[in-house]
Amino acid sequence: MSEQRSVPLREHLLALKPCRHGGLIQETSETYGIPENEILDFSANFNPLGSPFDYPETGLNFEDIIKKSYGKLLEYPDNRYVEFREAAARFVGPGVAPQSIVPGNGSTEIVRLVVESMIEKGDIVLLPWPTFGEYEMQCRIMGAKPVYPAQDEINTLSDEMLEEAKILFICNPNNPTGKLRSREELKALAERCREHKTLLYVDEAFIELSDPSQSVADLPADNDYVFVMRSLTKDFAIPGIRMGFGIASPAMSDILNTARLSWNLGAIANTTGTALLNIEGGIDSPYLKKAREMILKEGETLKAKLDRIRGFEAGEVNVNFIFVDVSKFMLNSSELAARLASRGVLIRDCASFHGLGKNYIRIAVRTEKENDRLIAAIGDVITEWGREQAKNELQHVIEKASEEGIGGRKTCEYYPCHFEGQNCTFCFCPFYPCENEKTGGKWIQSSRGGRVWSCVDCHLVHKKEIAQKILDCLMQEGDTDELVKVAWKKVMEPIL
Amino acid sequence: MSEQRSVPLREHLLALKPCRHGGLIQETSETYGIPENEILDFSANFNPLGSPFDYPETGLNFEDIIKKSYGKLLEYPDNRYVEFREAAARFVGPGVAPQSIVPGNGSTEIVRLVVESMIEKGDIVLLPWPTFGEYEMQCRIMGAKPVYPAQDEINTLSDEMLEEAKILFICNPNNPTGKLRSREELKALAERCREHKTLLYVDEAFIELSDPSQSVADLPADNDYVFVMRSLTKDFAIPGIRMGFGIASPAMSDILNTARLSWNLGAIANTTGTALLNIEGGIDSPYLKKAREMILKEGETLKAKLDRIRGFEAGEVNVNFIFVDVSKFMLNSSELAARLASRGVLIRDCASFHGLGKNYIRIAVRTEKENDRLIAAIGDVITEWGREQAKNELQHVIEKASEEGIGGRKTCEYYPCHFEGQNCTFCFCPFYPCENEKTGGKWIQSSRGGRVWSCVDCHLVHKKEIAQKILDCLMQEGDTDELVKVAWKKVMEPIL
Repeated sequence: MSEQRSVPLREHLLALKPCRHGGLIQETSETYGIPENEILDFSANFNPLGSPFDYPETGLNFEDIIKKSYGKLLEYPDNRYVEFREAAARFVGPGVAPQSIVPGNGSTEIVRLVVESMIEKGDIVLLPWPTFGEYEMQCRIMGAKPVYPAQDEINTLSDEMLEEAKILFICNPNNPTGKLRSREELKALAERCREHKTLLYVDEAFIELSDPSQSVADLPADNDYVFVMRSLTKDFAIPGIRMGFGIASPAMSDILNTARLSWNLGAIANTTGTALLNIEGGIDSPYLKKAREMILKEGETLKAKLDRIRGFEAGEVNVNFIFVDVSKFMLNSSELAARLASRGVLIRDCASFHGLGKNYIRIAVRTEKENDRLIAAIGDVITEWGREQAKNELQHVIEKASEEGIGGRKTCEYYPCHFEGQNCTFCFCPFYPCENEKTGGKWIQSSRGGRVWSCVDCHLVHKKEIAQKILDCLMQEGDTDELVKVAWKKVMEPIL
Repeated sequence: MSEQRSVPLREHLLALKPCRHGGLIQETSETYGIPENEILDFSANFNPLGSPFDYPETGLNFEDIIKKSYGKLLEYPDNRYVEFREAAARFVGPGVAPQSIVPGNGSTEIVRLVVESMIEKGDIVLLPWPTFGEYEMQCRIMGAKPVYPAQDEINTLSDEMLEEAKILFICNPNNPTGKLRSREELKALAERCREHKTLLYVDEAFIELSDPSQSVADLPADNDYVFVMRSLTKDFAIPGIRMGFGIASPAMSDILNTARLSWNLGAIANTTGTALLNIEGGIDSPYLKKAREMILKEGETLKAKLDRIRGFEAGEVNVNFIFVDVSKFMLNSSELAARLASRGVLIRDCASFHGLGKNYIRIAVRTEKENDRLIAAIGDVITEWGREQAKNELQHVIEKASEEGIGGRKTCEYYPCHFEGQNCTFCFCPFYPCENEKTGGKWIQSSRGGRVWSCVDCHLVHKKEIAQKILDCLMQEGDTDELVKVAWKKVMEPIL
């Protein structure tokens, strides 16, 4: 029998917890029995246009690229990755040489490589919260000691704090908050980091879908203390092919390229990545420009719709995802995410981000039609939750009534919400929404734009004799939903 | 200007040297201007049958697999890799559960993962020499301290040595020597390692192309101190797709799967790997059985031909590569490898393996026709080298004669090799091989099976007056090769 503590791994790994991410399509499919292709994923953030292979005008054809890769499958990739690194340097822009490029099997490998090449066990790293979880994950694996300033403290970090830290991680724009820092702000920070010999690690995974002019990718050229990371996954919406890269000073890059795994990019990632980075127009290709325009436009529309949901407070739109404060919403972030997942709609519950509790969600910006499906799904969750609350309330009423008999709630702070002397056994109407206008109820416009059934003019269930009859029906043996139908038929229909 | 020592990386990485590998096809093409598809690679060791996609009877079709992957490119791979791990466990055989499988982006990533999960800086690792270089590379990156017993000391390692080491690396069969250890031997070693709490890391990258019955893949199931590694690159001859996996105890595997990079297998590697591991018949599929038979048969034939080369001593044939001692050959391993590379034939110069000097090469077993091309290329190198030696000798003779006049070498230990009183100015004949039987020379059988020009009955260049005339010709201004032709025409032709 092997006990956890007996395995011959580094002590600090024994309690290692996995880093949570969005995009759990297969797991959701298994849990809720929803076919994978019917799941709508707002939990991972890709270019909402989809991959450039869907746009003939990009000149990129995936099948052609794959065919070109065929011959390469029978040999090891050339570990120098000359074409990839040239294409990456050109794509990022002036001030970046191919020699500075460090290719990665996804950007996570780049985080790992830098951390394992810098960190001695016990070294301090600065992880401004909230931010992307992989920095902390990789730092923990290497035995670093994380310190968590807040995101808005980054520009006022003390000299002592910078001095004792090995790495300061900045995600720009920040995941999950979407906050975009200016190039000037980061340049100033880079100078402070150089003074204190602290590596400024700038993760620009989302910069091409935000404002590429704020990039600091040119700074590492003459500063060993700046490292910039890029990802192709987000820009080109093909997370199934793992491709990212780092940009380091030539001296740093030489060593990191020696320390990285040989052949870390397989033939297909190498060929596909090179082709994507060589996209006509580079960072200003029509495909990427169109994506940025679409993100701003659809992002603002989506933000407006999210803000109309009671208890939602959506953050600014700088990039292809929106950070939403749901602390005043009726469900916490985890409950909301789980209920949406059961409907085949994934959002990112931010509970796994340091410091956020269950108060935030992150939502990718997708197409107008898809965004509207999300809004509708949230509406459904709210309705479902309302029904459940009513049913729970009803159950409670039935149980209480069987013990104490029919009664009122005269101590309720809203009493009387309909009329003086009303009977409050059914504070929530068991028939809601009955949709029968003979009751005095009617459809009205809701604040979210849809319609909602209003009972303001129906007093029926608050009359004592009617409430008693309904209660008699509901207290019979049987399924509550069925008993409600019986009560409607026996008690309500005759009086309408 | 950044100085190497100023970069903020771990001290022990500053002088890190890359790990050398075979398979440098693109580099060779660039260096010698030979098209990549004309290069014949004996320096990397793959299944000599080629990939199973070339054999319709395997039921594996690469284009179908790629098409199946298309839909998966637009989402993150499911990081649990359920199907891959199930297929891997089934492929390896009884005693291995899917829970024990740790997927890797190539087997190198598996080495790295285990080392970074176990090693604290300064920990001792045992690297029996010679063996695969990546163990040392990954250990050095993590700051381990390597100790090098010899391969034949593995079964007699002292208790003290095992006790103080964290990991003992065994490659079975061993790269580059081809030595295959028995399962019984490794089981005994595993028990010793458990006693001393030292991880026995068994790299079985080549076991399916050797003797799978010697595998110890079932041992980790109840021993936290055995870890087994497998590679798909070798078996299925597709190094362009990076796929390998580790087999660990369930407790070890859980932590390693948490510590490995998320989504380390891209969609195509995941789908392709799963399909390959599900090959009909598994490890005993007709494709793999045929490969093992072919390796033994062609390997023995190749070994016999190598052994006939003077100065070559080929090792035993257990797997799809042969280790050759070239310490008595006329060229060292690096010179031989470089000369073959210039002819578009790659072999593995073993000079980068710890302890081997420039005395060994490793040669992959390929098809009969390809193996014969290698033998022919080695023959060409030998001939070329002989010609160069003769030319250098001639140059030396000319220079010496211009200073000292025509002379003999009466102090030569072989004097007189033709006749008493012979003139030895041209110890090596400048016209060799003249292929003119009028000289008394003739074709004879060589010991390698080909024919060779013998001068045993030609004494012409050793007659003083002929030697003088030849020397006069050769001492003119001009290209030596051209002057030799002139001398043949002016001096030799008239006397034949």
